[in-house]
Amino acid sequence: MTKAPWVYFFGAGGADGDASMRDLLGGKGANLHEMTRLGIPVPPGFTISTQACIHYLKEEAWPEGLEREIKEHMIHLEETMGRVFGDKTQPLLVSVRSGARVSMPGMMDTILNLGLNDETVEGLAQVTSNPRFSYDSYRRLLQMFGEVVRGLPHQLFEYQLEEVKREKGVIQDLDLTAQDLQKVIQRYKDLFAREGVSFPQEPWAQLKEAIEAVFKSWNNERARTYRRIHDIPEEWGTAVNIQTMVFGNLGEDSGTGVTFTRNPATGEKGLFGEFLLNAQGEDVVAGIRTPLSIAKLQEWMPQVYQKLKDLACLLESHYRDMQDIEFTIEKGKLYILQTRSGKRTVKAAIRIAVEMVAEGIIDRATALLRIDPEQLQQILHPDIDPNTVYCVVARGLPASPGAASGKAVFSAQEAEETAAQGEKVILVRPETSPEDIGGMNAAQGILTARGGITSHAAVVARGMGKCCIVGCDTIIINEEEGYILAEGVKINRGGPLTLNGSTGEVIVGEVPLVEADPGPYFSRIMEWADSVRTLQVRANVDTPENALLARKLEAEGIGLCRTEHMFFEKDRINVVREMILAESPQERKKALTQLLPLQREDFKGILRAMEGLPVTIRLLDPPLHEFLPKTLEEMEAFSRERGISLEKVQEKVARLHEFNPMLGLRGCRLGILFPEIYRIQVRAIFEAACTLAKEGVDVRPEVMVPLVAHVKEMRILRDLIEKEAITVMKEQGVRVGYLIGTMIELPRAALTADEIAQEAEFFSFGTNDLTQTTLGISRDDAAKFLPQYVGLGIYPKNPFATLEEGGVGQLIEIGVIKGRNTRHNIKVGICGEHGGDPVSIRFCHKMGLNYISCSPYRIPTARLAAAQARVREELIKWEEEAA
Amino acid sequence: MTKAPWVYFFGAGGADGDASMRDLLGGKGANLHEMTRLGIPVPPGFTISTQACIHYLKEEAWPEGLEREIKEHMIHLEETMGRVFGDKTQPLLVSVRSGARVSMPGMMDTILNLGLNDETVEGLAQVTSNPRFSYDSYRRLLQMFGEVVRGLPHQLFEYQLEEVKREKGVIQDLDLTAQDLQKVIQRYKDLFAREGVSFPQEPWAQLKEAIEAVFKSWNNERARTYRRIHDIPEEWGTAVNIQTMVFGNLGEDSGTGVTFTRNPATGEKGLFGEFLLNAQGEDVVAGIRTPLSIAKLQEWMPQVYQKLKDLACLLESHYRDMQDIEFTIEKGKLYILQTRSGKRTVKAAIRIAVEMVAEGIIDRATALLRIDPEQLQQILHPDIDPNTVYCVVARGLPASPGAASGKAVFSAQEAEETAAQGEKVILVRPETSPEDIGGMNAAQGILTARGGITSHAAVVARGMGKCCIVGCDTIIINEEEGYILAEGVKINRGGPLTLNGSTGEVIVGEVPLVEADPGPYFSRIMEWADSVRTLQVRANVDTPENALLARKLEAEGIGLCRTEHMFFEKDRINVVREMILAESPQERKKALTQLLPLQREDFKGILRAMEGLPVTIRLLDPPLHEFLPKTLEEMEAFSRERGISLEKVQEKVARLHEFNPMLGLRGCRLGILFPEIYRIQVRAIFEAACTLAKEGVDVRPEVMVPLVAHVKEMRILRDLIEKEAITVMKEQGVRVGYLIGTMIELPRAALTADEIAQEAEFFSFGTNDLTQTTLGISRDDAAKFLPQYVGLGIYPKNPFATLEEGGVGQLIEIGVIKGRNTRHNIKVGICGEHGGDPVSIRFCHKMGLNYISCSPYRIPTARLAAAQARVREELIKWEEEAA
Repeated sequence: MTKAPWVYFFGAGGADGDASMRDLLGGKGANLHEMTRLGIPVPPGFTISTQACIHYLKEEAWPEGLEREIKEHMIHLEETMGRVFGDKTQPLLVSVRSGARVSMPGMMDTILNLGLNDETVEGLAQVTSNPRFSYDSYRRLLQMFGEVVRGLPHQLFEYQLEEVKREKGVIQDLDLTAQDLQKVIQRYKDLFAREGVSFPQEPWAQLKEAIEAVFKSWNNERARTYRRIHDIPEEWGTAVNIQTMVFGNLGEDSGTGVTFTRNPATGEKGLFGEFLLNAQGEDVVAGIRTPLSIAKLQEWMPQVYQKLKDLACLLESHYRDMQDIEFTIEKGKLYILQTRSGKRTVKAAIRIAVEMVAEGIIDRATALLRIDPEQLQQILHPDIDPNTVYCVVARGLPASPGAASGKAVFSAQEAEETAAQGEKVILVRPETSPEDIGGMNAAQGILTARGGITSHAAVVARGMGKCCIVGCDTIIINEEEGYILAEGVKINRGGPLTLNGSTGEVIVGEVPLVEADPGPYFSRIMEWADSVRTLQVRANVDTPENALLARKLEAEGIGLCRTEHMFFEKDRINVVREMILAESPQERKKALTQLLPLQREDFKGILRAMEGLPVTIRLLDPPLHEFLPKTLEEMEAFSRERGISLEKVQEKVARLHEFNPMLGLRGCRLGILFPEIYRIQVRAIFEAACTLAKEGVDVRPEVMVPLVAHVKEMRILRDLIEKEAITVMKEQGVRVGYLIGTMIELPRAALTADEIAQEAEFFSFGTNDLTQTTLGISRDDAAKFLPQYVGLGIYPKNPFATLEEGGVGQLIEIGVIKGRNTRHNIKVGICGEHGGDPVSIRFCHKMGLNYISCSPYRIPTARLAAAQARVREELIKWEEEAA
Repeated sequence: MTKAPWVYFFGAGGADGDASMRDLLGGKGANLHEMTRLGIPVPPGFTISTQACIHYLKEEAWPEGLEREIKEHMIHLEETMGRVFGDKTQPLLVSVRSGARVSMPGMMDTILNLGLNDETVEGLAQVTSNPRFSYDSYRRLLQMFGEVVRGLPHQLFEYQLEEVKREKGVIQDLDLTAQDLQKVIQRYKDLFAREGVSFPQEPWAQLKEAIEAVFKSWNNERARTYRRIHDIPEEWGTAVNIQTMVFGNLGEDSGTGVTFTRNPATGEKGLFGEFLLNAQGEDVVAGIRTPLSIAKLQEWMPQVYQKLKDLACLLESHYRDMQDIEFTIEKGKLYILQTRSGKRTVKAAIRIAVEMVAEGIIDRATALLRIDPEQLQQILHPDIDPNTVYCVVARGLPASPGAASGKAVFSAQEAEETAAQGEKVILVRPETSPEDIGGMNAAQGILTARGGITSHAAVVARGMGKCCIVGCDTIIINEEEGYILAEGVKINRGGPLTLNGSTGEVIVGEVPLVEADPGPYFSRIMEWADSVRTLQVRANVDTPENALLARKLEAEGIGLCRTEHMFFEKDRINVVREMILAESPQERKKALTQLLPLQREDFKGILRAMEGLPVTIRLLDPPLHEFLPKTLEEMEAFSRERGISLEKVQEKVARLHEFNPMLGLRGCRLGILFPEIYRIQVRAIFEAACTLAKEGVDVRPEVMVPLVAHVKEMRILRDLIEKEAITVMKEQGVRVGYLIGTMIELPRAALTADEIAQEAEFFSFGTNDLTQTTLGISRDDAAKFLPQYVGLGIYPKNPFATLEEGGVGQLIEIGVIKGRNTRHNIKVGICGEHGGDPVSIRFCHKMGLNYISCSPYRIPTARLAAAQARVREELIKWEEEAA
């Protein structure tokens, strides 16, 4: 058996490896080989395998034969390029880069320009007729070698460079001349000497040491941390790529540029990009010269342009996606340095996907996978005009997408009053509470200093489809005097403010917005998605208006109608307060009776809007104290209005205080302790349903009990609900079909789902609360540590945004399996915030849920994500069958 | 095949049934048959089977043959008793009682004195020479029949009785004469007529209707509710017992009494009880005559006494336990009405158990099962002198046992100051917070108005072994003016107050206490317990003093040493505050450095006290804001002392506010965000351990990370702990063995225990937090609804006192199994409050935990409970093997 080689060559129209050899050649290496095989002119080079790295690290010595193989391949490379490594007149320069099986952006050590030394630098200066470039390249080599190979601190080099600039009196590196750079080179050499380390003039020594340094970098501190966090096995090792350096600044027959195969903004087919003649990639980035449109290349170098066009076409059809291609022209010869799938706007993504299906490049399933469901939000909401320049003064968490402009106001009342005068307003609050709902509704957008993306403000704003930024903790809000301080900019009450809820940007002034326009390709994609998905998509909706919106966005029912939001409206809140302050069930019932007709009308509106579709109504859930007046003024006002002594109000409010309201007297516990509350709610639901049924409307109410932990709670409340429902239906003389079910939002509920399913006809996973309790994290307090947790990779994403599968997901799985064991046809859905998150939707599909429920504006996102989940599942099945 | 009979006779020395026929005859019935078989003279009678009840309820008619069988058995009964049912001169009276397979105290319908009517009442008056008794018996029959059979409201009868008493001008029923009672009888009859229902004069009709009523009572509302809560099948039905009435008031050769087979206070062997001649059981209860010691019976009726003594001996050896026997002597004939295991003090229980083993009545295993581990608390703490009369003004939750007297004080500071003057004080607070620790320590006992039995006050007091009553919400505490209002009694600052922490009684004045005295039999029982149990018992201890106490009580290590309690002491709290307010890791480290020597000394004391035993030290757990000053005064004082501006203090305190601190920035999240805190704690532990090791002390520290939810948290902190431990050991030049482990106190931790076990060498289930998160109940807020929940039977017991097996238990099981799957020898324990609860300990044994950990004073309880768990397990195995 002959040993597999350590080194693999690519170039001159052929390659030893290909895309399938990722494990051996690393991701970067395998792709370089693949492109070469395709006939793409990539700068030739060779890859040292991961096996060599592993051997080196284990034995602390080069494997036998490696050096010989490198030398052989270097000769091959020299022949291919017509240059010689270390030659004074035609020096071959190479780069050395690491490349593991998977991309590890944190640990990539790179050394460019190897092969330069005191002599070859002169040769390069002559060849390129660009001494400045040549000395700069040498300076960079010295610095990179010093840092990466010799481990000298970055600052030492920077200090020397800064010194020379200071002496010269310039600020930019680019203002240094060739002479200046020679001075820098000397200083760097002195630095090496001072630090007692050498810089090898011998190019072979440079190369060998660089390779060893890259091998070793596999085990540096940050790489180990990265691997630990991302569960990457230590024994993989990294490959090393040695590749010819090419230069676009060797004259007017050279150049460099970037092109897309389709327009990344609109999706229109055709080369779209820019280039510079006699320039390096850096020059494009530095912006000192204005690049030209790629179309100009056709005039200047028609053959090169044609070649680029052909290659673009080849790459797009090979990779079956729009490509973003970096190229360099060295003395009329075109090199492709990199190709990758191009970033694009969602509008472009949709058009490209639809057109590629028409062109036969991809199938519909692939088209569906090509669109980021998250990005769909962008085309459903107004956006900032992309041609506008604006001033960002702060950045918060993008809680609800879209953009909005208006006058800054600092209270809900102010928002309502100002909006009533026809002004657009932005509501600015430290945080919002349920009492702010009116003001949030009146505002164009909401900005809060505190709270996470699942805080009250965020949840309500998404429900309203309203732009919202939360947790913007760098701004100082002075509510009393009415101003915001952000980065030294002060925006007074009434001052103009713009929010970009998709990015979290807080902008001074009003900037022009463009209205939402899904465009002609959108409905085609949605149609494909609906034909594929098996998961139903319902909406979380609390009002008749939103029910109509949800219906328009093609919701297949309501998965969560929160009755408490109905309680916060102006005409109701004081009646609710009276109910809470009641001293006896009788008193409480009196107050509840006043709420009955109001709730009934809401339910009528919602049930009518959702005719023929299920409407899940959750009975009262939040802690009662949420409804109570908070400030002394509010208490006084309430005391006056309802004729209840201030002391009593204060005492009751104090008595209802809870240390951890999330785990307090709420949910079905309210229904157990105060059955009259649930009874009146059930009455309102069934009076509404019966009235409509008599009009011939097809109503499908589903009554949902929140925060159940034990089947006995469900049993008691199911009895109560059934009894009241039957009473109402008898009174009304009509029967309507209905279901009684529960939220599964506590670990105990999931763990005992088999018992609970005896009493529940449907489950709806309340993943917000389930996440809080399973992980022991209060979502309102998580901002203090969750960002760091995500940063450290403890949780890959915010578990309140994307369902945490390791723990919460396990409980959902247990809940589904146990629930169906008891009641095989139990309807199972999810109504937490995760219902609108594509990654979580994929998990819900995998768990075999019947439906997900999300904010109305997220319905298209959810429909697409559900379709993608199905497509991915089929692909996996297909791969498994093929294997 | 002949049909099984519907009716089973017992009496005249024989019985158709026995103790094994519980399903057919009900619990009560089967025991009456069993006793009769033993030759015990129980009043004869017969039992109608549960089958008859089921038949009746299903068919709504008497089963064929039932009536005939009853008549036959009634004749048998008449012959046995020499009386005739319905006879005017020698009337036989019977009782009719329900009796299901299991005791259902809520639904028991009973009718006494059946057989009385306008004529037989006169006969009974003559026979007993007691017309008052006879009319009273008849009145009672009318009332019971009216209520139970006819369903008339209780109040209607009470009203008539009250009227007659009012007319007569008396208050007590006993002040009514025979004539008055005849008047009541007439009024009752009028009542029947007015309500349009009859009272059958015919005794057979009375009996038949009474039997039917008992049958039907199986399906009354409260019985159905009771069955639903206790999972008793509907199809069981109830048996009906018809039993002869006997009377102890038929002359000087009659009497009634109660006797124990051993002294229930001391356990001494021998009859112990009292009796009355010519009296009924009621008379003993009513206390109008002073009963005589049972020894007197020997003088008055030597044969009867001898017979009673023999029967007592028989019953005790049959039931193998000390018996509490009710008897009646009717005209020289002794009847046993009831026998049951007698209630006894724990002291008596221990002596009886030890002596019965010596007597060969029971084995050691049974002896261990005979003692209520919970009651052991009583003999370890001082108690109120049982001979004292005292005035209870309020009742709270008995949070920590024992009794204590002292002057009432209203703040921790006051407690410390007054105690420093040599006074005994009782600390009275609305609730306690960690800052009150000093005052709690100085006080004899603690009383709080709020909080449950796992509130801060309760947990800390139990840890200190200090008497404590919490949640005493009927008292009003005025902290400012310094007084308590309870039931109209006002106790001012310095006023005398006594608490009974075992019962929850709050007592005005100082009452005499008796010191704890475990007695000579205690250590024997403990010795047996230790020889049997497999579960280790450790202690939860935070100070060197308590460590010594735990060692004395034979703890086998420390399962939980909370480092945060060390932070609250006077000399430390401001340094801790400075640490929290630090703006940078450097500043924080500076403050931490001041804490290092203090913590180190604590750890030295604890590790030294526990030489040779494991000491589990938990790193900092609670939310940082708990340590911060709360009132404006505290903030000002801190600001002055540490030279930090008041604004800054206020701002930081506000910033650290959390909505749900239980789920906030605490536990290992502190260690992840502020590694310097954990690092200094680890340093303190290992500096202490190394110093001692160099002195030759055998130290076994175990470092425990709290609130872990994800293995990555554990991985990061394990690295940190190991690194610091190794650094310290190198510095000190000595190696000590140690373990690193984690609390399992969040559902996610239990669900992913297989992953976490990769990094943890031991698990300790923190069942307080695990209960909170699994059930979604904040223990600090649970008082608002948990009592009702327990009352409704949703949870059988307070889940913070007794481990909730349905949900929390499932997670523990998952955690243990998954943890051992990864690391088969992982040490698993429990350190929540449940570690001291006998029922929970049984569960821990079943789950195969290695140890439990509890407050020092609960160690004997835990040792016994662990032994009982083992014994019960062996019994079950033995039964299974036998089957």
